[in-house]
Amino acid sequence: MDLNKMGQRAVSAKYELQKLSSEKKRHVLLAAAKELIADTEILLEENRKDIRKGEENGMHPGMLDRLRLSKERIGAMAEGLEQVAELEDPVGKVLEEFVRPNGLKISKVRVPFGVIGIIYESRPNVTADAFGLCFQSGNAVILKGGSDAINSNMAIAASIRNALKKNGICQDAIQMIESTDREVTSRFMKLNQYVDVLIPRGGAGLIRSVVENSTIPVIETGTGNCHIYVDEYADPDKALPIIINAKTQRIGVCNACESLVIHRSIADRFLPALAQALQSKNVEVRGDEMVCGLIGNAGKASEEDYGREYLDYIISIKTVETIDEAIAHINKYNTKHSEAIITENKENARKFLNEVDAACVYVNASTRFTDGFEFGFGAEIGISTQKMHARGPMGLKELTSYKYLIEGEGQIR
Amino acid sequence: MDLNKMGQRAVSAKYELQKLSSEKKRHVLLAAAKELIADTEILLEENRKDIRKGEENGMHPGMLDRLRLSKERIGAMAEGLEQVAELEDPVGKVLEEFVRPNGLKISKVRVPFGVIGIIYESRPNVTADAFGLCFQSGNAVILKGGSDAINSNMAIAASIRNALKKNGICQDAIQMIESTDREVTSRFMKLNQYVDVLIPRGGAGLIRSVVENSTIPVIETGTGNCHIYVDEYADPDKALPIIINAKTQRIGVCNACESLVIHRSIADRFLPALAQALQSKNVEVRGDEMVCGLIGNAGKASEEDYGREYLDYIISIKTVETIDEAIAHINKYNTKHSEAIITENKENARKFLNEVDAACVYVNASTRFTDGFEFGFGAEIGISTQKMHARGPMGLKELTSYKYLIEGEGQIR
Repeated sequence: MDLNKMGQRAVSAKYELQKLSSEKKRHVLLAAAKELIADTEILLEENRKDIRKGEENGMHPGMLDRLRLSKERIGAMAEGLEQVAELEDPVGKVLEEFVRPNGLKISKVRVPFGVIGIIYESRPNVTADAFGLCFQSGNAVILKGGSDAINSNMAIAASIRNALKKNGICQDAIQMIESTDREVTSRFMKLNQYVDVLIPRGGAGLIRSVVENSTIPVIETGTGNCHIYVDEYADPDKALPIIINAKTQRIGVCNACESLVIHRSIADRFLPALAQALQSKNVEVRGDEMVCGLIGNAGKASEEDYGREYLDYIISIKTVETIDEAIAHINKYNTKHSEAIITENKENARKFLNEVDAACVYVNASTRFTDGFEFGFGAEIGISTQKMHARGPMGLKELTSYKYLIEGEGQIR
Repeated sequence: MDLNKMGQRAVSAKYELQKLSSEKKRHVLLAAAKELIADTEILLEENRKDIRKGEENGMHPGMLDRLRLSKERIGAMAEGLEQVAELEDPVGKVLEEFVRPNGLKISKVRVPFGVIGIIYESRPNVTADAFGLCFQSGNAVILKGGSDAINSNMAIAASIRNALKKNGICQDAIQMIESTDREVTSRFMKLNQYVDVLIPRGGAGLIRSVVENSTIPVIETGTGNCHIYVDEYADPDKALPIIINAKTQRIGVCNACESLVIHRSIADRFLPALAQALQSKNVEVRGDEMVCGLIGNAGKASEEDYGREYLDYIISIKTVETIDEAIAHINKYNTKHSEAIITENKENARKFLNEVDAACVYVNASTRFTDGFEFGFGAEIGISTQKMHARGPMGLKELTSYKYLIEGEGQIR
């Protein structure tokens, strides 16, 4: 496993990719989509190896389902590439232009990062998705998938590499790390010489491990302990459907609501109806004293509950005296992902928008909208929960950097 | 040394700072400048302790000079704060606004990072400079200066904290880590819970150590192995003054030129004149075979020479057959800081601008212009040599993040 060689090959590829025209990139992505379809039988066969191994190891049925490919899922992967092919090429856009008093003409131009590393877990479709976004934004990508999906991932990458070769593009635009050795992953995270940015995609454990061990700049994604605050001026007819949607429409995602904060002056009117709605969706409630008093079957929430991303049919509820207390609670426990206020009071809405520290702050809408497609970015590589570089949904633009081009006629200092 | 407490205090301060009006920030920065001037005697006294310790430890005279404060230097620090006070407040600017088909109104608004950590070496003026930039961009700052300057740094921070107190601002907008223990620095670099971004300012060793040990997102600054490529179509009347300026106007800075790449077809005409000009400035030349043949007293350049940031009166010179070879050489050895081509050929200029991987790429101008003031940013916290978040000179805007504000009327997915 010569990671340095992989790094060098990725760097060679990046210089080629940054020169490709938008039209050529579009053409190649469409060709890669076709190649995946043509290789359906091979992909299914390789995927069966992973499934068999998973079954032997007693993998959880939900995990097995995430791992499994089908003709339809391969079709969806190909479609994903076709969609990215139609998105606007972000590379080369002039972001700013100015002339200095000494005559230097400075322009700030969007450029690819160069080489992006992605470390991800079980779902093999990420292989094609990540390639599509990186390629369209002019970047070479080195992928490290989960060991569970290694055969599927290698087959998908091989198929894409074939499409690249047929189109005269350097195959190393996509490279998959074949080893499933943890020590290799650990060395990969220190490949600063070749890799410009590392993006982990997966559970909280994976992301923490990458943040702690990588010396390459990391874009942290995905952990979401998202709150909805029901203000004293909330319209219950908006609050209820928003909470039910944010909590239960899809429980396992990072933009699902995990915790409610409720103004005490509205609690006795609102909580009984809420309890009924949550119960009808089989959501377990863990709350403070007031909540337990108003909701019969609610359990007592511990400090730890308020900090948890359940990804399950559980919700914590905290009551507060003031909007300031609500904001302080949210800023203490949230993961800087998505937070919402339900209110008809414009001043409180403005205050919440300004003072809550999160990538996305909502008024009267579900936190589930934090998503590259919902934001109109056409696709996303993840939701950034850090403040450096990109925050919130990351589309093609967020996979780029910029450089300054300075034109002179002999200027010196 | 309770770093967690410092972190908590910085977080409290950040919520206060992000709400300050531009006018209030301006007023406070001007007050801090006045306070520094009023405290001149105290600052000089504390600085003398550092100087005495430095002399006892046999500190190099150049280092002693960097460490020394004087009435003039304190005046310059104050003036720096006054200048930053007049710069445009970057916070709150709406960067984008759009409405989704479902009626959600999304705006992307510039916000402070929150808490910035800065680790720096000997020069005490950085204490005031860094505070000024962080404060004007709405950030709380935790500073860790060099042990050599600890008394000076503590005194400057105390003076600024006094000014904050007098103006009713949370003093923890600036905190200085008093300990000079390395173990404390090491823990500081893992304070992810409180610190949003860490910026090292100093030599290559300091920066490497921060990149390798920090788990907080880092903005890497400052190392510059900058090249000037003299193309076959170069105008020697532009090339010579640019090279002499970039190499010798100030040798110890990151945007100084450290290496030349020269097209062979121009070498025999250009190198003798260049040799003479460099010699008149006492610059030692280390070159390849052709260079040694044409410049009598040139030494042989090793592979290592091409990768070195000399920060000294030394320059390496490499000759090439083609512009492609020049670009490949530069992309191999540079630190992604600043690179220049001297040419009258528009096509070659365009090629160089597009294909060289660096924060700032120049045509017919000195690399010395890579600087926040020269770019018109009014000030700078450093020159970023990484691609994430900010690249090149970093001013106030580069000390901010953004967030998405989403306003709905009950939308759910």
